[in-house]
Amino acid sequence: MHTATPSQRSRTAAPAFAEQYRRVRAVTTDLCRTLVPEDMVVQSMADASPAKWHLAHSSWFFENFLLVPQLRDYRVFEPGFNYLFNSYYHSVGGMHPRAERGLLSRPTVAEVMRYREHVDEHMLALIGQRAADPAFAALLTLGINHEQQHQELLLTDIKHVFAANPLQPAWRTLPAPPATRSSPLKYIACPGGLVQIGHDGQGFAFDNETPCHRVFLRAHALASRPVSNGEYLEFIRAGGYSTPALWLADGWDSRRRQGWERPLYWNAEMTAEFTLGGLRALDADAPVCHVSYYEADAFARWAGARLPTEAEWETLAAPQPLQGNLMDSGWFHPRSAPGDDAQQLFGDVWEWTASPYAAYPGYRPPPGALGEYNGKFMVNQLVLRGGSCATPLSHLRASYRNFFYPQQRWQFMGLRLARDA
Amino acid sequence: MHTATPSQRSRTAAPAFAEQYRRVRAVTTDLCRTLVPEDMVVQSMADASPAKWHLAHSSWFFENFLLVPQLRDYRVFEPGFNYLFNSYYHSVGGMHPRAERGLLSRPTVAEVMRYREHVDEHMLALIGQRAADPAFAALLTLGINHEQQHQELLLTDIKHVFAANPLQPAWRTLPAPPATRSSPLKYIACPGGLVQIGHDGQGFAFDNETPCHRVFLRAHALASRPVSNGEYLEFIRAGGYSTPALWLADGWDSRRRQGWERPLYWNAEMTAEFTLGGLRALDADAPVCHVSYYEADAFARWAGARLPTEAEWETLAAPQPLQGNLMDSGWFHPRSAPGDDAQQLFGDVWEWTASPYAAYPGYRPPPGALGEYNGKFMVNQLVLRGGSCATPLSHLRASYRNFFYPQQRWQFMGLRLARDA
Amino acid sequence: MHTATPSQRSRTAAPAFAEQYRRVRAVTTDLCRTLVPEDMVVQSMADASPAKWHLAHSSWFFENFLLVPQLRDYRVFEPGFNYLFNSYYHSVGGMHPRAERGLLSRPTVAEVMRYREHVDEHMLALIGQRAADPAFAALLTLGINHEQQHQELLLTDIKHVFAANPLQPAWRTLPAPPATRSSPLKYIACPGGLVQIGHDGQGFAFDNETPCHRVFLRAHALASRPVSNGEYLEFIRAGGYSTPALWLADGWDSRRRQGWERPLYWNAEMTAEFTLGGLRALDADAPVCHVSYYEADAFARWAGARLPTEAEWETLAAPQPLQGNLMDSGWFHPRSAPGDDAQQLFGDVWEWTASPYAAYPGYRPPPGALGEYNGKFMVNQLVLRGGSCATPLSHLRASYRNFFYPQQRWQFMGLRLARDA
Amino acid sequence: MHTATPSQRSRTAAPAFAEQYRRVRAVTTDLCRTLVPEDMVVQSMADASPAKWHLAHSSWFFENFLLVPQLRDYRVFEPGFNYLFNSYYHSVGGMHPRAERGLLSRPTVAEVMRYREHVDEHMLALIGQRAADPAFAALLTLGINHEQQHQELLLTDIKHVFAANPLQPAWRTLPAPPATRSSPLKYIACPGGLVQIGHDGQGFAFDNETPCHRVFLRAHALASRPVSNGEYLEFIRAGGYSTPALWLADGWDSRRRQGWERPLYWNAEMTAEFTLGGLRALDADAPVCHVSYYEADAFARWAGARLPTEAEWETLAAPQPLQGNLMDSGWFHPRSAPGDDAQQLFGDVWEWTASPYAAYPGYRPPPGALGEYNGKFMVNQLVLRGGSCATPLSHLRASYRNFFYPQQRWQFMGLRLARDA
Repeated sequence: MHTATPSQRSRTAAPAFAEQYRRVRAVTTDLCRTLVPEDMVVQSMADASPAKWHLAHSSWFFENFLLVPQLRDYRVFEPGFNYLFNSYYHSVGGMHPRAERGLLSRPTVAEVMRYREHVDEHMLALIGQRAADPAFAALLTLGINHEQQHQELLLTDIKHVFAANPLQPAWRTLPAPPATRSSPLKYIACPGGLVQIGHDGQGFAFDNETPCHRVFLRAHALASRPVSNGEYLEFIRAGGYSTPALWLADGWDSRRRQGWERPLYWNAEMTAEFTLGGLRALDADAPVCHVSYYEADAFARWAGARLPTEAEWETLAAPQPLQGNLMDSGWFHPRSAPGDDAQQLFGDVWEWTASPYAAYPGYRPPPGALGEYNGKFMVNQLVLRGGSCATPLSHLRASYRNFFYPQQRWQFMGLRLARDA
Repeated sequence: MHTATPSQRSRTAAPAFAEQYRRVRAVTTDLCRTLVPEDMVVQSMADASPAKWHLAHSSWFFENFLLVPQLRDYRVFEPGFNYLFNSYYHSVGGMHPRAERGLLSRPTVAEVMRYREHVDEHMLALIGQRAADPAFAALLTLGINHEQQHQELLLTDIKHVFAANPLQPAWRTLPAPPATRSSPLKYIACPGGLVQIGHDGQGFAFDNETPCHRVFLRAHALASRPVSNGEYLEFIRAGGYSTPALWLADGWDSRRRQGWERPLYWNAEMTAEFTLGGLRALDADAPVCHVSYYEADAFARWAGARLPTEAEWETLAAPQPLQGNLMDSGWFHPRSAPGDDAQQLFGDVWEWTASPYAAYPGYRPPPGALGEYNGKFMVNQLVLRGGSCATPLSHLRASYRNFFYPQQRWQFMGLRLARDA
Repeated sequence: MHTATPSQRSRTAAPAFAEQYRRVRAVTTDLCRTLVPEDMVVQSMADASPAKWHLAHSSWFFENFLLVPQLRDYRVFEPGFNYLFNSYYHSVGGMHPRAERGLLSRPTVAEVMRYREHVDEHMLALIGQRAADPAFAALLTLGINHEQQHQELLLTDIKHVFAANPLQPAWRTLPAPPATRSSPLKYIACPGGLVQIGHDGQGFAFDNETPCHRVFLRAHALASRPVSNGEYLEFIRAGGYSTPALWLADGWDSRRRQGWERPLYWNAEMTAEFTLGGLRALDADAPVCHVSYYEADAFARWAGARLPTEAEWETLAAPQPLQGNLMDSGWFHPRSAPGDDAQQLFGDVWEWTASPYAAYPGYRPPPGALGEYNGKFMVNQLVLRGGSCATPLSHLRASYRNFFYPQQRWQFMGLRLARDA
Repeated sequence: MHTATPSQRSRTAAPAFAEQYRRVRAVTTDLCRTLVPEDMVVQSMADASPAKWHLAHSSWFFENFLLVPQLRDYRVFEPGFNYLFNSYYHSVGGMHPRAERGLLSRPTVAEVMRYREHVDEHMLALIGQRAADPAFAALLTLGINHEQQHQELLLTDIKHVFAANPLQPAWRTLPAPPATRSSPLKYIACPGGLVQIGHDGQGFAFDNETPCHRVFLRAHALASRPVSNGEYLEFIRAGGYSTPALWLADGWDSRRRQGWERPLYWNAEMTAEFTLGGLRALDADAPVCHVSYYEADAFARWAGARLPTEAEWETLAAPQPLQGNLMDSGWFHPRSAPGDDAQQLFGDVWEWTASPYAAYPGYRPPPGALGEYNGKFMVNQLVLRGGSCATPLSHLRASYRNFFYPQQRWQFMGLRLARDA
């Protein structure tokens, strides 16, 4: 991750940082306001974590990487938490097995909330002391962005918990987004050539967005908007899920083994989908969501197109205004968008790219435990771009690289088509 | 299960039944009084169930088998519960997969408590109307005994939840049972011959205890008390867990696959064990507990003895007074016992017998869904006898047959030695 | 296993033993006469072994338990074989994993044949020296019976290999057994009471058939013949495979997991079955074969009957002449039998009993490695009685106890019904 | 795959093609000359195939893609083979499950050899008729290259079979390659910039090597030779296998799950390795071989370097002469090489690159079933470059892209280091 910019290093940094810290931390807690303790314990699959675990782990991150090393006389809230809430930092020590996070009834939700308060109180003290130190500010900003990543995960994980329950409870009473007709899909041409991608050094970015570097692109075109539910239904009705020639070999195996016949969360009749607001009629104009890379890739092949590379995507997105149906808009679900030009690059659904998640040329992970943050996952995953309806606006940018395994579907994942010129 | 006796059929049956019903139901609730909602959701392995599930399922049992068919105008509390809380009755309809009981955050604990109250209220009304009907009384008694079975399971399952937590929380603050020296193990001879075992028709029994029938026994002898922790430690120190010749072939495979090196819940140093009262020093004189059939069998072979058959066990136990360290004594853990004669046949630990769980000659399961209660499990399991420190006294008798798979260890399971004359 | 009878101890024992040894060993080799080396290497599932392995292991048994300890100056054929061909004798040393027997291309079939010749040559020398020694004679007889057990396994295992091949090759060109109408099934009553079962000490028996002991039986009746293919078809057509109420709980799980819809080796149309002579029309009058215990038990429940206990079976079978459709008759497949009285107790199909495989009262395994022969398998399996069309006549007797896991189907397994009086 | 060049389209093409076909097919058969039928049936893991299967599948490829569509009146040798020997072409029809190739004892090796002869005879007739047709020539060339790919697989698969056998048989009596001191590792600098990679259209190439395209490279340097056994031993001795910080997260999981502590085929003492010539002393100067991508990546991190991208590798290799320790040199094992400049780019070991196997920009798979040849594997695998001691010289070129999963180790796989300038 990048160091803070000079303007953040001023004397006046502390109040702004404190405010930002408080605001982001409050969002996490607020996402849980409709949850009962029972909801916050369950782990519905190994890929997901209990809400309680997210609340505790994001606090542990601040405690372990900022309070312990930097706040004089700080005493950890509970020594056992270092083992329980370390996610994957071998450099920090042992950790509770990921797939067993749902076995932990204790600490209770109330204790975790006290843990958060304890961490917040000391963090605010530390911010007061150290905000002007660029190294501290960088770590703090990383912690805040880390918290925001767990906000999105908390939402996708609780959605999975509720969907696994035959009673299908809603997370919140949520209005359905207004339905509009999506505009006909058109292609936006790009002449290619040498382009620059990656983070340019202004503001925060994760280490995996750097260094900024040149990539040679062929002439190509990207779709003006993501693929819609209606278009995806056509693919299904055309036999997409029973035609191996459309699928990658590993994708076909995955489809068979998992019994996929439609996107995750669709009902068997394909008329409704489970949302954070409960079961809701399928909007044919909204972007299709909760499809794996394998499904996205098969759809693209069926459509005579392909998925974009991340460099192609970023080249189109970088000049666009950073706005869209993000977490802040409060729908918590993708929605249709009627515009004509490049639409919905940000928000609604993370867009699978054809790019395997790999190091940018010259990439170097930071030293120490935080070197484990991103670098060690650079194999077997694919890059997704653009954020979703569960991503905080202040967390996103055009160079942002999200990454998941090709068989994963529980994030707000969709796709945009591309084709060669 | 047997029909009620004539004396229960009198007009005065209702108040007694109502009192019994109320008392037993209250015990279940009371077992949860120190639990927070978080504790009651977790399922720590497929064999165990969340406390919340036990609370709901035992209510569903009354609702489904008594209220729905017999109480005029009864409306089920929540139709979805029939699917969620049906344990294994295919005749009743579909059911939530056993291994996914821990995925259900809803209904909440509070809702389940309301469900219990709803069922209790209507059950008491129904008891007032129907107590004099022998068929009703038989079903009611079955329901009450079913409730008691789930009390023991609730305890063993919550113990497993807490043991899986690195923080090792205690279920309750419990005093350790007073430690006494156990008397030297001696053998009590039995001449054998034709004996009668099984339930004789007085009072309630499960269908699997019938019919009462004759069995021919050889002369043999049974140990005066269960094997102790101290004796089991000798077996371990003598290499018991690394000597395949002592083990059944399937047992040795199980030991290797699971990495068993000592009883479940012992610490690695073999100085302490996890109990419902938390981690506690190992009492060498108390009966060894939480061993599988395979371990019990290997110990017996090492000791130059064998496990008793259930007929041998019942022949010794039947004349003994029905008393011991049961749930009612409040220790919730096996304890040492100093007596000289036949000791601890009832309570402390369920004793593995050498008898596979099979139908008694002439056994017939009851018609309808309740035929699924016991009969369909009569394969692959072994009989255990005598109840444990988590069994209610009023639930037990000498003919009682408990049954588990040979690799299971999480019940309060121990062993008593036998040998041929 | 029992010691030889006094008559075998005479001076004249050697030629008779030599002749018996030669004859039995030649049968094994002859069973392979139509096999090519490729056939003899394949292991089609972990339960089965390659033909080559059977040829080598049965030789290793003689080498390890007779030649090495008793023949002066004997040199083992190849030291590496002790590891490769030890089946399950931990007391003898390490062993090649059972499921990986099919990975061994070497030793070649030709080398294994040389190994057999080497062992035979030295065994005949040893028989000449030691036949009069009762302990030697007992071990030799055990080895010969062990060889015969592997003859049956070799046949069932090669059948499984060929059935797994889409080309469905025949083991041999075999005529179909003559089809006759089976007589109507009737029940043969037994008054019950104290009976004696187990081996009585005359001639060879395995240790698990001893000691002879008394069992108390209720009045009951056994079917005059095994269940036929035609009767089993009725069960299937009546929905037997889709009615959970007919099945043991573990059986229903097994059925679902394995996708069972009919006996092993039947074609999907249920008009033909794969046999050692290739695919052949299903004979409705022949005994049903290749069903698991779970299927046998479900059929019996559907038929309003039950499976017999092994004591009931032995009581009926003991007075019958030891004859039937055994390996010696050369059909290598069950056949219909028209008789009216107790039919087909011996031969055709091993009959599943309701008796878990357990030690007889007072059973003691022999000391040393041969104590592992039978005793350590006395859990989780069920007893089958009566031999099959793949059992050598000279290997069988009424007290013979075969045993398999309830989910296994690849042996020649069928069932006979029983009911209470 | 590319079409043949104009020079191949001449009238004189037939004899040259016939000679090439005969020569390549003969090499396959010759690789089996020391094998007995037993060796050729075994499948030692799902990733590998029996030698017999390779012999048959490569013949089926010619039969299915050339003889059936193009040779008038051709009759397939055996219709069942289409199912048995189709590897993964869904467009062609169903196929025998990959993991069950080792269950097929039939067809016998002799029958497969007759199948080969049948195909060869008809292929030579077809070549005589059609060699001048460019489309035919392209398919024929593809079939010949396909045959060569299976030559290498046959070798790596039979090595795995023999290594799984405790007797550790040698494939052939092979001399060890002469041991020389490897020169000190040095780095060869490359200034970077826009380079062109991929196949340029002269001669045969697989479709996945096209289109030729531009890539922008940073300045970097590549090691002069692969990493040696001696260097890899240092990594192990420095704790490389017990330091999670050196590993990708998925790599560390793989290491733990599989229990990796050293390269595949090394003995526990790390003094010897199993080769096609049997167990042989480890040559510290020879390239390390049989390491997974995860191990290669961890070694590079430990060495303060990284793996090269495939574009970097190709840029260095393209100008080098196409020569090295390939299959033709007859060592069938990597050997040390003393030279000073860029060494061993071709032959010895396939070199893991950091490049996920993905489509080149503008890549289009060919239409029809042959579109399944390469394209559907473009996910989850990594590219390896340069050929190995088991690759035929005439099969290789600088643009050749091999690909395997990151956990696979049984190919002749090693690594070359890279670093940024």
